[in-house]
Amino acid sequence: MSQTGALASESASTIARAAKTAFEASQLVPSSERVNALHEIRRELENAKAEILEANRKDLQAAQAEVDAGRMAQSLMKRLDLTKGDKWDSMLQGVTDVADLPDPTGKITYACELDDDLELYRVSCPIGVLLVIFEARPEVVVNIAALAIKSGNAAILKGGKESNETVQLLSKAIQTALAKTPIPNTYIQAIQTRAEVSALLELDQYIDLVIPRGSNSLVRSIQNSTRIPVMGHADGLCAVYLDQAADAEKAARITVDSKTDYPAACNAAETLIVHEALLSTTWPKVARALLDADVHLLCDQRTLSALSSISPAPPKLSTHVRPSKPDDYRTEHLSLTISVLAVPSLAAAMAHINAHSSHHTDCIVTEDTSAASIFCRGVDSAGTFVNASTRFADGFRYGFGTEVGISTGRIHARGPVGLEGLVIYKYMLRSKGPNGHIVGEFGVGAGKKQYKHVKIDAASVLF
Amino acid sequence: MSQTGALASESASTIARAAKTAFEASQLVPSSERVNALHEIRRELENAKAEILEANRKDLQAAQAEVDAGRMAQSLMKRLDLTKGDKWDSMLQGVTDVADLPDPTGKITYACELDDDLELYRVSCPIGVLLVIFEARPEVVVNIAALAIKSGNAAILKGGKESNETVQLLSKAIQTALAKTPIPNTYIQAIQTRAEVSALLELDQYIDLVIPRGSNSLVRSIQNSTRIPVMGHADGLCAVYLDQAADAEKAARITVDSKTDYPAACNAAETLIVHEALLSTTWPKVARALLDADVHLLCDQRTLSALSSISPAPPKLSTHVRPSKPDDYRTEHLSLTISVLAVPSLAAAMAHINAHSSHHTDCIVTEDTSAASIFCRGVDSAGTFVNASTRFADGFRYGFGTEVGISTGRIHARGPVGLEGLVIYKYMLRSKGPNGHIVGEFGVGAGKKQYKHVKIDAASVLF
Repeated sequence: MSQTGALASESASTIARAAKTAFEASQLVPSSERVNALHEIRRELENAKAEILEANRKDLQAAQAEVDAGRMAQSLMKRLDLTKGDKWDSMLQGVTDVADLPDPTGKITYACELDDDLELYRVSCPIGVLLVIFEARPEVVVNIAALAIKSGNAAILKGGKESNETVQLLSKAIQTALAKTPIPNTYIQAIQTRAEVSALLELDQYIDLVIPRGSNSLVRSIQNSTRIPVMGHADGLCAVYLDQAADAEKAARITVDSKTDYPAACNAAETLIVHEALLSTTWPKVARALLDADVHLLCDQRTLSALSSISPAPPKLSTHVRPSKPDDYRTEHLSLTISVLAVPSLAAAMAHINAHSSHHTDCIVTEDTSAASIFCRGVDSAGTFVNASTRFADGFRYGFGTEVGISTGRIHARGPVGLEGLVIYKYMLRSKGPNGHIVGEFGVGAGKKQYKHVKIDAASVLF
Repeated sequence: MSQTGALASESASTIARAAKTAFEASQLVPSSERVNALHEIRRELENAKAEILEANRKDLQAAQAEVDAGRMAQSLMKRLDLTKGDKWDSMLQGVTDVADLPDPTGKITYACELDDDLELYRVSCPIGVLLVIFEARPEVVVNIAALAIKSGNAAILKGGKESNETVQLLSKAIQTALAKTPIPNTYIQAIQTRAEVSALLELDQYIDLVIPRGSNSLVRSIQNSTRIPVMGHADGLCAVYLDQAADAEKAARITVDSKTDYPAACNAAETLIVHEALLSTTWPKVARALLDADVHLLCDQRTLSALSSISPAPPKLSTHVRPSKPDDYRTEHLSLTISVLAVPSLAAAMAHINAHSSHHTDCIVTEDTSAASIFCRGVDSAGTFVNASTRFADGFRYGFGTEVGISTGRIHARGPVGLEGLVIYKYMLRSKGPNGHIVGEFGVGAGKKQYKHVKIDAASVLF
């Protein structure tokens, strides 16, 4: 191990141990104190506003130099700017909003009387220590800290190196605020280097969940280098399928919204699948609507022919429509471009989606309830939508109040993840019997007891 | 890659693709067919009983040769024997029992009206393709297949090489039975070699969850070599803590049951923690009860002195009691041995448990409800028990009807895992509106709609 590596490893170990200790100590603090801590954090951020914005100005200066040298995109630099629009105020409001959400911990999800005076409760509780790795936008550190604190998890945060100065100051404000509460200030820690991340990924005895928020390659590289569970989202390859029984108006509206409402989002549609019965009817209308919205179409041979053969030719046919390549159907365009193909059947559409999509969100446009039901069962994605834009796949729109991210994994949490995705549960078993309870009393034969297994009606428990 | 490696990789890829295809096809089959399939499997196992037991005889013969050559433990060989006791009949009964359990899929866990005519449902559904790796006992293949089918997951199973002949025949019977149903027979497949397992661990596009059932080292080695999520149980280092306010009778009963009811189980106690106030009172009584049950005690200096200083000396003091070493407190004895230490406080007991236990199940014996509550919150384990034996940590005893395993992980499923641990959910969004639903209609400003977010009362949906 290099000297830097050894240093990072020692520092990571100290940080991780401190996080676990803080987590364990926090379990004895009532959850109302976590809400108070969020209000303290908001106040401290307000107090430290001048300092934080000064640090942000340094990050922006450094970024400007990178942009001038052609090493950073202008759009990335813009995302760093905490003074832009209402970003600062909405960051603060976000803390208050999270504080006001219902407590996801302490909820009973199973309660059963195993025997007289022997009661089992499954109670929601935090996961433990989270390692959250995110890119550019510095305000994410505040958002994630708020979610972690609200759900009772300790967190170690690593932002993009471009926002380093800002993140350090934001995290200092968070720690200053925590120091005024019964929650240890090492509950939320920020780290700065990739070497520390690498070292932390080894420490599965202290870190319980890694949440990478960023590119597909970031997520996979982390999955490849740790035993710790990873909750990431791989990518967003969403499809809209226009069924044989699609209403033409709905088809156009939903396809255009799915593609153009926010093309850079993971829940934007990247592929349009057209039933062959629609090639000369609905498809030209939908294509026209997409072209009117300035969308580029990458078409398979049949959908391309169908457009070429109509007269008058659709506007922008020559500039915005071209033949697709196989890779286009596995590409997250994240821009005003959509890949298009024709299929002979609903089954073929589902097979294409299951083979090519990222199992994020896929939509069928149809008036046929039986086709809708088959699509919803047969498409193996986190979201299966009927006559509704893929853009609805979002924690706020789903009614969760906030969103940790959108998981394309298939265990623990799938789709938009709210605070519920940051908790697990523990089983509490309490005997009130005069002799306590032992297993040896149960079984078959004379004098042995049988389990009662009577459900208990209980919604929450203070423990 | 070696030629064997390349072959295994090709075979693994074929198997994994077939499993995923079978899984996808099965999503269109009603869940009642999965129950029928379980009944078919039981019938086919009965039909093939002679063949299967003949294969089992071959495995046993080969195992006997290994035992004779000193390369296999007699106890391991015994676990292979399908004819032993009522093993065959209870294996068959297990299939029927699983068939009779409630369907874990199709349950609605969240339902919300986002807008007029726009309804969101979160519906429980299978995870996908499971890779289950287990050791010796061949009947596990039938048990796991039943659980996978009931929960709607496809499965690839790898048994111990000692039970290879038996597992092949059991799995052939399962596939024969599936061929009589609408469920593809590649829904359940058995593999034979470690090379195939290694190759499958690479295929995260087809395999969704790995479930290793076996030793701690098996679980960790798998976690180290795959991007696929792993649901395993690391080990069972459970503790009983005798609080200052412990009742002496309960202390003895619960400690003895936790240690001796089934010492080889993961929920057996391995550590006894004694509050120092009990050293000359309750502790000698508990020690006597343990010694009477033939338990060996590995004691720290204070608990050892306390025993040595009483007169008359406890029986077996010289043969069954010796000083402990630090490693003993991290050892899963799995035998009639327990490590013992004294602590000055409840906080010290919790700190010891959080630092040493495997976060499986830990128990406090106390009459003090406040100490009980602090213990249950502060001990970071899947099970925190009050005055009840650690041996209650079990899916059957908890009332789940069956058990996939006991998870010491902290995401998805924790503690004893029933059928619920084999499902996840998907979000179904249905618009019944005259124009479908698009996101562009919502927002701030004139003419924009607001989300309603009205909870819908719905328990289950056929989709």
